[in-house]
Amino acid sequence: MTIQEIADTLVKLCSAGKFEEATKTLYSDDIVSVEAGAPPGGEREVKGLAAVLKKGEWWVANHEVHSSTVEGPLVAGSHFAVTFKMDITFKPQSRRFKMEEVAVYKVADGKIVHEEFFYSM
Amino acid sequence: MTIQEIADTLVKLCSAGKFEEATKTLYSDDIVSVEAGAPPGGEREVKGLAAVLKKGEWWVANHEVHSSTVEGPLVAGSHFAVTFKMDITFKPQSRRFKMEEVAVYKVADGKIVHEEFFYSM
Repeated sequence: MTIQEIADTLVKLCSAGKFEEATKTLYSDDIVSVEAGAPPGGEREVKGLAAVLKKGEWWVANHEVHSSTVEGPLVAGSHFAVTFKMDITFKPQSRRFKMEEVAVYKVADGKIVHEEFFYSM
Repeated sequence: MTIQEIADTLVKLCSAGKFEEATKTLYSDDIVSVEAGAPPGGEREVKGLAAVLKKGEWWVANHEVHSSTVEGPLVAGSHFAVTFKMDITFKPQSRRFKMEEVAVYKVADGKIVHEEFFYSM
């Protein structure tokens, strides 16, 4: 797939809530995933497909998604950007809030090798 | 200005080649600007409006722009993303090449306080 096709597929899958499928099909085994800040009990930077899938599982188990939108992609060279806007409840604290973030992805050899999320803590 | 207005204005000014005006009107005095890699003789990270304007002056003096497009913005929370695609000549080496990059901006108190550029070296 071209980077445009990878970016379009990511947006399509994430828009349908299929985050795990996006990770399994589009990500490199050597993916590096970087948050703006470390999640509770976690690290800011996670390396490797298994660790990123585990982070996704933690996220799904701990959040209820009331609504979400994914916008983009904007593709340039080896990188693309999308935005995520979600109305979610963090279940351990029953805390409902809106989360908005920019995500930037780097593609190499037909796979996403780096992702970074930008939001204010 | 709202972040959407700041983002739209940045795209409008940069599309017209008015990079210096964009910097002077939209950036915080405490702007931090981060490149994917250090430019020749420079630093990867530059802090402060004066230093960012100086980096811009260096860029303008050393590049001839044959064509450019700016796409976006994608706005989410305190951040927004745009892409730059340029056909340029690096004048000291008479080397013409196409540059494509994703840029992510952070806004606080109505000014751009952080920008980071993503491209492969």
